[in-house]
Amino acid sequence: MAKVSIDLNMKRVTNDNFVEKAKKLEPKLLEKQVKPIKIVSIGDDGKVEPRADIGELDRISLKKGDSLVLDFGDHQVGYVSLKLKSVGSPQDAPAYLRLKFGEVPKEIKENSEEYNGWISRGWIQEEYIHVDVLPAWLHLPRRYAFRFLEIYAVDTSVKFQVVVEEVVCRAVSAVDMENIEPFSASDPVLRQMDKVSLRTLQNCMQSVFEDGPKRDRRLWLGDLRLQALANYATFQENELVKRCMYLFAGLTREDGAIGACLFTEPEYLVDDTFMFDYSLLFLSALKEYYEATNDKETVEELWPSAYRQIELSRMCFDERNVVSEEAGDSCFVDWKEGLNKQASAQAIYIYVLKDAIAMANAFGQEKLAAKLEEERKRCVSAALDYFWDEKQGVFVSGEKRQISYASQVWMILAGVKAGEEARMLLDRIVELKPEMSMVTPYMNHHFVEALNLCGEKEKAIDYMKYYWGGMLLQGADTFWELYNPDNPQESPYGSSAVNSHCHAWSCTPSYLLRKLTNEE
Amino acid sequence: MAKVSIDLNMKRVTNDNFVEKAKKLEPKLLEKQVKPIKIVSIGDDGKVEPRADIGELDRISLKKGDSLVLDFGDHQVGYVSLKLKSVGSPQDAPAYLRLKFGEVPKEIKENSEEYNGWISRGWIQEEYIHVDVLPAWLHLPRRYAFRFLEIYAVDTSVKFQVVVEEVVCRAVSAVDMENIEPFSASDPVLRQMDKVSLRTLQNCMQSVFEDGPKRDRRLWLGDLRLQALANYATFQENELVKRCMYLFAGLTREDGAIGACLFTEPEYLVDDTFMFDYSLLFLSALKEYYEATNDKETVEELWPSAYRQIELSRMCFDERNVVSEEAGDSCFVDWKEGLNKQASAQAIYIYVLKDAIAMANAFGQEKLAAKLEEERKRCVSAALDYFWDEKQGVFVSGEKRQISYASQVWMILAGVKAGEEARMLLDRIVELKPEMSMVTPYMNHHFVEALNLCGEKEKAIDYMKYYWGGMLLQGADTFWELYNPDNPQESPYGSSAVNSHCHAWSCTPSYLLRKLTNEE
Repeated sequence: MAKVSIDLNMKRVTNDNFVEKAKKLEPKLLEKQVKPIKIVSIGDDGKVEPRADIGELDRISLKKGDSLVLDFGDHQVGYVSLKLKSVGSPQDAPAYLRLKFGEVPKEIKENSEEYNGWISRGWIQEEYIHVDVLPAWLHLPRRYAFRFLEIYAVDTSVKFQVVVEEVVCRAVSAVDMENIEPFSASDPVLRQMDKVSLRTLQNCMQSVFEDGPKRDRRLWLGDLRLQALANYATFQENELVKRCMYLFAGLTREDGAIGACLFTEPEYLVDDTFMFDYSLLFLSALKEYYEATNDKETVEELWPSAYRQIELSRMCFDERNVVSEEAGDSCFVDWKEGLNKQASAQAIYIYVLKDAIAMANAFGQEKLAAKLEEERKRCVSAALDYFWDEKQGVFVSGEKRQISYASQVWMILAGVKAGEEARMLLDRIVELKPEMSMVTPYMNHHFVEALNLCGEKEKAIDYMKYYWGGMLLQGADTFWELYNPDNPQESPYGSSAVNSHCHAWSCTPSYLLRKLTNEE
Repeated sequence: MAKVSIDLNMKRVTNDNFVEKAKKLEPKLLEKQVKPIKIVSIGDDGKVEPRADIGELDRISLKKGDSLVLDFGDHQVGYVSLKLKSVGSPQDAPAYLRLKFGEVPKEIKENSEEYNGWISRGWIQEEYIHVDVLPAWLHLPRRYAFRFLEIYAVDTSVKFQVVVEEVVCRAVSAVDMENIEPFSASDPVLRQMDKVSLRTLQNCMQSVFEDGPKRDRRLWLGDLRLQALANYATFQENELVKRCMYLFAGLTREDGAIGACLFTEPEYLVDDTFMFDYSLLFLSALKEYYEATNDKETVEELWPSAYRQIELSRMCFDERNVVSEEAGDSCFVDWKEGLNKQASAQAIYIYVLKDAIAMANAFGQEKLAAKLEEERKRCVSAALDYFWDEKQGVFVSGEKRQISYASQVWMILAGVKAGEEARMLLDRIVELKPEMSMVTPYMNHHFVEALNLCGEKEKAIDYMKYYWGGMLLQGADTFWELYNPDNPQESPYGSSAVNSHCHAWSCTPSYLLRKLTNEE
């Protein structure tokens, strides 16, 4: 179980001006009516087999214990209505149905009674519903993320059976796929990867950039930054990025710390979870927003909030300019169990300093830029002194000098190693196959960015075909929150039943592919 | 498992005039806001212990696995709303709650997963509900019958807990208790018996006379007749009886047979279940309605429908004037497993003939009355020839000459044995303690009527104290569908989880007590 942050005494401050701006930018969601395209069977192994033509639907009657699975053809996010009737003798008891929504087939087969993970079972998209009077349209009030819907008759009675006449999903998103130029490539895998990335991003773009429409359905900073990058390269719904940036800056801890995540319901509220890396990366997200939009007014207004994160993070450094182990512990970096994040924390701080320097220069704050540049150099030097293992030729992290992908990747992105040296470091870590691998598309995204930075465009694309392509081979319609090629069923929560299979931070191939090929 | 009637080819006829009249008589339900009075604990034995003052409610926070039980002080039928909030860190997952409604405490402790009865598990009043955003008012759309409500947190998250701030029930009934004169008696048991009977009747009086507000929530003829009797003696909401009579007469089988039960939703519809005794007793119910209301217009209009039941039932008699075994099998009489009902069927036909003769005379149809009187005599004579066992001094039923309470009771009510002979017959059957006892208040009602007919008023009251009083000793707030003093947990459905504990046919003590004491 991961560390869960709870701070009941946390004091929040609100910048009403920022929150007001964010509210005005709330998008009107686009709606699309989607119907199932097939009736299927799902085996215990998750294998999907066709069962009947969708036109047969109203000829299937469900008695106690019967079920059917509908396939909506692609990942959907929306509100579902079912038109139900009874057949046989008059309906002499409530129809008792279980509805189960699955982003991937195996969710349908997982027994939620046996769920024993550490996050809430409430995330499993399963409803038990009594329908007292048939025929009826059953309008489910909750939003679901799914491709498959199982309708299971827990009980009817010996006198009647239930027939599902029609099922409709009112799919919602802030953006439409219509205007997107698909990534053009001769390789069908890359085209498919782009398509699935775009769908992932589209279905996460709701009232805010959500991390996952199944779970957690809210705004996380780490996800936002990657979503924003993919959005600039595709949908260009930049007002939604602006809205989210104002929310993060408008709702902070008393000391100005930007939260790792925000709730938008029942009211806008910053969570009591703070992560060293996520708070800092608000600055990088702001810089990237500026590069994409040239919206100087917004960026100038939000700059003090971003810069405040540097001031707060600076307190975690000792006199040697080495970040504390605690700061490392409060980083996200990756879901890899046992990963030591101290070196990553040092590198991320340097990475963000670099962006801060660029911003300060852009806004004519040369003095600040110079001061930050000095700090950056001190931190780089400390990174080389304290985290570089000359003998092994890799960065190490923590007291036990742990070797991981994450440390190398972030040190390279931070520019602590660069050029040929960095390129060789990446080769070395791949060859070493450290136990501390990468399990999230979030971390893998940064690995691909590092390859690109080292000029390894071909390797980067090959790696994407291995990693995101691995999910495609598993039938992904949208990219997953977590994918470990060595253990595709891995979950950070103790059970894959609550994994999110359409996850914001996994949508970056659309961005990476365009970037890797544009620069060629 | 009882025989379930299914006739998919049944042809229905509708008398639009009758149905129109019934629709116009639909009552406007009275509403009353009821709040829980106590927080309690229920032991595995169903014992209720106080847990906390109701004022403590919003100080109890529910984390995963926690629950609380609210006691509403009396049996309620209505719609429930819960005001919920979260405490702790922000609500980072849906709150997943199970709500369980119990008419009696042990329903709360029964595990519905283990339910294995032959009627639908859908009757168990249990809901699984996800609440995505707290605080919220949760308005449950279904109607429940209950005194106890358990709120169980299936899951929250490690970050937040759920608090139930307030629970309100909008209780509904066609009648109000305000205007009822309670039964006056020095014996507190009799006063309590009257109170519980009245509550039973009140909570079954909805848009129609329901058999039970938990289950089946619809109009059954056998229940209606007894409810009407209790209603005449108490609430006197006679228009509701009239409405139900028009419904039964307006919606029949093609041959004019009146059904055992009617649905009122989604439209008025007669079920495909027909019972020899129930169809016939429509005539007795009509006679009793006439006696109570003197509403000649209605009774004359419905008389042909009632008389048609005699014509149809007559076809089940052979040349000896003995009813067929099949007719017996299609009687309800009682839920007693293994009961042979041939003798009861013969007796009930004679009983109804007697009422038909009285009606024919009342409406000046002397020729018909005389013809029916001759038939009655033939049937009585056949009853004595074929069902009376001279040696044992009891009526027997079926090929195996089964001895039961039911046969004696109905033969006495039919007047086949009368006076001292009938009185001694009742004594004899009580002494014999036949295996074929009585398990429903419906059958026990007729036993008490038989005692009264034989002048045994004191025995009748003593018996009521033993039988309905037995339910009072078990804590009944309303009288139950089934009560076997030798096995209080008995169920006709394979599990008491679906038993109805507020059941129409059990409400007659209010009528019987007034009748037994008035005539003294």
